[in-house]
Amino acid sequence: MSLNDIANTAARIAEAASAVPMRYFRQGGLGIETKDDGDNSPVTIADRETETAIRAALAHAFPGHGVFGEEFGTQGSLDGPAWIIDPIDGTRFFLTGYPAFGMLIGHLQAGVPQVGIVRMPALGETFAGIRGGAATWNGAPISVRATTRLEDALLFVNEPERTHAADPALFARLCRAGYTRRMSYDCYPHAMVAAGQIDAVTDMGLEPYDFMPLVPLVEAAGGVITDWQGRALSLGSDGRVVTAAGAALHAQLLELLNG
Amino acid sequence: MSLNDIANTAARIAEAASAVPMRYFRQGGLGIETKDDGDNSPVTIADRETETAIRAALAHAFPGHGVFGEEFGTQGSLDGPAWIIDPIDGTRFFLTGYPAFGMLIGHLQAGVPQVGIVRMPALGETFAGIRGGAATWNGAPISVRATTRLEDALLFVNEPERTHAADPALFARLCRAGYTRRMSYDCYPHAMVAAGQIDAVTDMGLEPYDFMPLVPLVEAAGGVITDWQGRALSLGSDGRVVTAAGAALHAQLLELLNG
Repeated sequence: MSLNDIANTAARIAEAASAVPMRYFRQGGLGIETKDDGDNSPVTIADRETETAIRAALAHAFPGHGVFGEEFGTQGSLDGPAWIIDPIDGTRFFLTGYPAFGMLIGHLQAGVPQVGIVRMPALGETFAGIRGGAATWNGAPISVRATTRLEDALLFVNEPERTHAADPALFARLCRAGYTRRMSYDCYPHAMVAAGQIDAVTDMGLEPYDFMPLVPLVEAAGGVITDWQGRALSLGSDGRVVTAAGAALHAQLLELLNG
Repeated sequence: MSLNDIANTAARIAEAASAVPMRYFRQGGLGIETKDDGDNSPVTIADRETETAIRAALAHAFPGHGVFGEEFGTQGSLDGPAWIIDPIDGTRFFLTGYPAFGMLIGHLQAGVPQVGIVRMPALGETFAGIRGGAATWNGAPISVRATTRLEDALLFVNEPERTHAADPALFARLCRAGYTRRMSYDCYPHAMVAAGQIDAVTDMGLEPYDFMPLVPLVEAAGGVITDWQGRALSLGSDGRVVTAAGAALHAQLLELLNG
């Protein structure tokens, strides 16, 4: 099966599975728990049911592939062909009825991301990226903007509370960076860099299922996505991520983040 | 004309005028300028054309009423029946392709807000509130949540950079407040309190066209919206706004904001 076919199948799986969170979105009574992960991230029935649906569809389409998901951990091996899933990326947005939560499905070979799907269930948008291939937004080709100077950039600062708590001086620098900026969360801003709508995103505190599916999408669109030291993202990365529309902007962001 | 009829007409005007920003949304080439208002807020062709369309429709439906809009100032008198307009509330989101920008239309009598319309052009949502009457979301009745304790609240902190710059200690308190929180911007979070999706919003740096249309919506849904001293909002308010699902929560927020 070509990476193109794998990407198309994964996109269809994400679109079909979107019905699960949308049954619960804005309905109340979600049975919220907080996870024992030091971050108290809320988990809902919707997260679990959505991951169950995605796993079932992947097992049918790709028997024998390993799977690593946020809610149910690892099944099989991640050393060969494997999948990495975040069923609801942005459970806090989901709980507040805000339509910017996403769904992430990534395909890995030997730990290297090959295909990335970002699905926005409440917005009806699907982004797909293929390593060495194309990036698309609802099927249409996308590419990053040509911005090269940080002072011209539309910058999104993800996880503002975490960033502020970890490094107040960095937070203050980010509050003045770019041409304009928005504080934000989760996968959508990264996808919007790939879609040529904004120029850069800083992010932190992420897990592999939050960032690995973004890699083929951002790179296929011509962007750069690494950790804050400029290293390629892997299953062992530290959860600090920076996405930029190109190498020049990326270099300026690394300087800002490590200044 | 009853307030109900006025609200229905204003909602139809907002929905029809949504076509103007949507022609420009995510299209690039917006002819961005920055306004000379100390905040460098970006103004686009889309802001101006949208306000022009709304003013033309209001002049047709309500001849002789005063109008005060963000882009073209005051026309006629605001002492009698009048309208207050923000054609694109969230121009920065609009510029970044992020679908959370809104459109605000408020109807005043002698400076007191009677009808408020919040329209979300990219989300296809219309909120309407009538003083002493009903609040609706795409036509369905809405009311605030019953949350009474701040520690249980879903809190949105609007204008995080401004809040941080104005009072770093307050920003740090807000970063720890509520059950969970999101940093955010513009009208949508206030409308989501009216819609019973979240519990509270803090906001600052607003102009009358940003907050006056919110008053009938939040109050008709059973919520409380005031300045940070708990005073009723008026054309002369200082631009600091707090919205809460009820009086108990509102009192705790005033304490937090002034602590």
